[in-house]
Amino acid sequence: MTHTRFTPLIDQLPATVPFVGPETQERGRGRPFAARLGANENGFGPSPRAIQAMQDAAPEVWKYADPTSHDLRQALAAHHAIPADSIVVGEGIDGLLGYLVRLFVQSGDAVVTSDGAYPTFNYHVQGFGGQLHKVPYRDDAEDLPALLVRARQVDAKLVYFANPDNPMGTYARGADIVAQLDHIPPGCLLVLDEAYIEFAPADAVPQIAIDDPRVIRMRTFSKAYGMAGARVGYAMGAAALIAQFEKIRNHFGMNRLAQIGAVAAVQDQDWLTQTVAQVGAARDRLTQIANDNGLTAIPSATNFVTIDCGGDGDFAQRVLQGLIARDVFVRMPFVAPQNRCIRVSVGTAQDLDIFAAVLPDALEQARD
Amino acid sequence: MTHTRFTPLIDQLPATVPFVGPETQERGRGRPFAARLGANENGFGPSPRAIQAMQDAAPEVWKYADPTSHDLRQALAAHHAIPADSIVVGEGIDGLLGYLVRLFVQSGDAVVTSDGAYPTFNYHVQGFGGQLHKVPYRDDAEDLPALLVRARQVDAKLVYFANPDNPMGTYARGADIVAQLDHIPPGCLLVLDEAYIEFAPADAVPQIAIDDPRVIRMRTFSKAYGMAGARVGYAMGAAALIAQFEKIRNHFGMNRLAQIGAVAAVQDQDWLTQTVAQVGAARDRLTQIANDNGLTAIPSATNFVTIDCGGDGDFAQRVLQGLIARDVFVRMPFVAPQNRCIRVSVGTAQDLDIFAAVLPDALEQARD
Repeated sequence: MTHTRFTPLIDQLPATVPFVGPETQERGRGRPFAARLGANENGFGPSPRAIQAMQDAAPEVWKYADPTSHDLRQALAAHHAIPADSIVVGEGIDGLLGYLVRLFVQSGDAVVTSDGAYPTFNYHVQGFGGQLHKVPYRDDAEDLPALLVRARQVDAKLVYFANPDNPMGTYARGADIVAQLDHIPPGCLLVLDEAYIEFAPADAVPQIAIDDPRVIRMRTFSKAYGMAGARVGYAMGAAALIAQFEKIRNHFGMNRLAQIGAVAAVQDQDWLTQTVAQVGAARDRLTQIANDNGLTAIPSATNFVTIDCGGDGDFAQRVLQGLIARDVFVRMPFVAPQNRCIRVSVGTAQDLDIFAAVLPDALEQARD
Repeated sequence: MTHTRFTPLIDQLPATVPFVGPETQERGRGRPFAARLGANENGFGPSPRAIQAMQDAAPEVWKYADPTSHDLRQALAAHHAIPADSIVVGEGIDGLLGYLVRLFVQSGDAVVTSDGAYPTFNYHVQGFGGQLHKVPYRDDAEDLPALLVRARQVDAKLVYFANPDNPMGTYARGADIVAQLDHIPPGCLLVLDEAYIEFAPADAVPQIAIDDPRVIRMRTFSKAYGMAGARVGYAMGAAALIAQFEKIRNHFGMNRLAQIGAVAAVQDQDWLTQTVAQVGAARDRLTQIANDNGLTAIPSATNFVTIDCGGDGDFAQRVLQGLIARDVFVRMPFVAPQNRCIRVSVGTAQDLDIFAAVLPDALEQARD
């Protein structure tokens, strides 16, 4: 007998995972990317106040962070006008999704998501032995009514819905989400991932009471706040649900500088507003670049633009590889028919200049 | 039916957890501590190069961290002269212990630790439904031979052993650990927590081949490297074991600044050496303060000194409360007979001046 008796579930899990970052690609290529437009990062960066706060706090990194993230939760409570005990802070939405799945899912439990939606959620569901049921996109958007029908059919404990969606960038109107709440089946929690919500039109935000037991909402500092490397996400929901995270989370998982930077960021909403405006302008330019090349951009409510390359998945894959070969880091959806597209994050004017310069060659080569 | 069908295990877990940080205590008291000596933090701080590296990296926090922690693992591989694929980096040892337990433990699986040892390990074991078996300390030290006997008796999958120990500060000689390796039962992995090892005498470090399948070793930047708030830990072991973490860990759980700071820290071993010297001197002074008050300090191989208050657990608790009332944050062991002691982290000269000034009053009050 070996000394490592893993659980049967662990033995069944795949050894490889879909998390290949640009640094790994750069090491494989032997040279850096010229434009980093593949991870939906926000190249306009965080509030200068957040940067300053993190720099000022660096000498005190010898102190553990407050395990309750008290100051950040207070700042978020004030920002959202909700009680602080309705908020849990974690190591990015990724970390919080892991805790959430662990709270609900054991081997064989049913979970519903869209086919081609956020893979990290699926990773966690599989990691706890859940049974994933996938619903197709409709018109390049996640289909909430169909997701809820499926949830009822399979007796799902969780149903995942991202608004706006990644990787397509589409969004649902908040009123349409609210209209669906009564269709959430008993015993099922709606996981509303709003990572990109700050970029979306105002009508994307659903009005849902914070103590509504049917929904948990996920937010992040990785996108509009420009702090992906800090790893700060938060979940909002009924206090009784939020309290359950205390039973299992890594109480000392948060970085102290990240907490302090996030407080400064949430208190600088002017910066957020101008960032969102810059992202909107960059989105328009990406759409124009697509059009200039005879391609169609899917209207986006996020900080990326998903571009229909006009062919099948193999064609889009060739375009993608052509861009990467020309030092532009981009990604693409991985399920048909969405995989006819490439996904290009917004970036600075310089980044988009590079993308505009190389896209024609990448397309021409892909068509050969 | 409610909308939140937690797993049966989650429903059974306690709602409250033992993670009460000094900030929570300060808010409860309505005033800050004057000396922060309770969390075994390293008030001498991190390498100035690490601080500078984090400050320099702050404007680029919009980028996600490399999910493989490639550069840090390379730096650690060079430092320890082991292959990089024998190292996994995580959100502190706490985070890594959570992943490790998840790899091995499901409901009812047996795990062995010492009664009164690191509670976060127990938290994770309980969190995955494991059955904890506890072995008493012997002479204020974790008793590895007895732990391994118990592991064989209960068919344990994991046995936890910290060297040096927390909360007593004692250590085992590396040669004595090596002599026990052949007693690790089949099907059992020894979790060797070496969070404090850099403070210990050289003979505390066991010589164990990196590909020995019987042992996994845990290290951290929280203690000697002075970066508790960064949340950087790492585990070292056989590559086949280390690879299993890839199946379940939060691949984007690491803070980018923390990664960069840790690389700078591990490459500044001169700073580490002078920190360890400062800690040793502060340890001596804490011992002297104890002696000056008629108390006995347990010889320490860590950055804290555990002081025998000469009475029972109630008496030590009164001393502890007296210190806290006098604005000195300290903690204490929570299992008899170790709970006759208080645990005082080393600090700067100013911190220890404060402790020395208030200890006589705290003792006198406790004796009333």
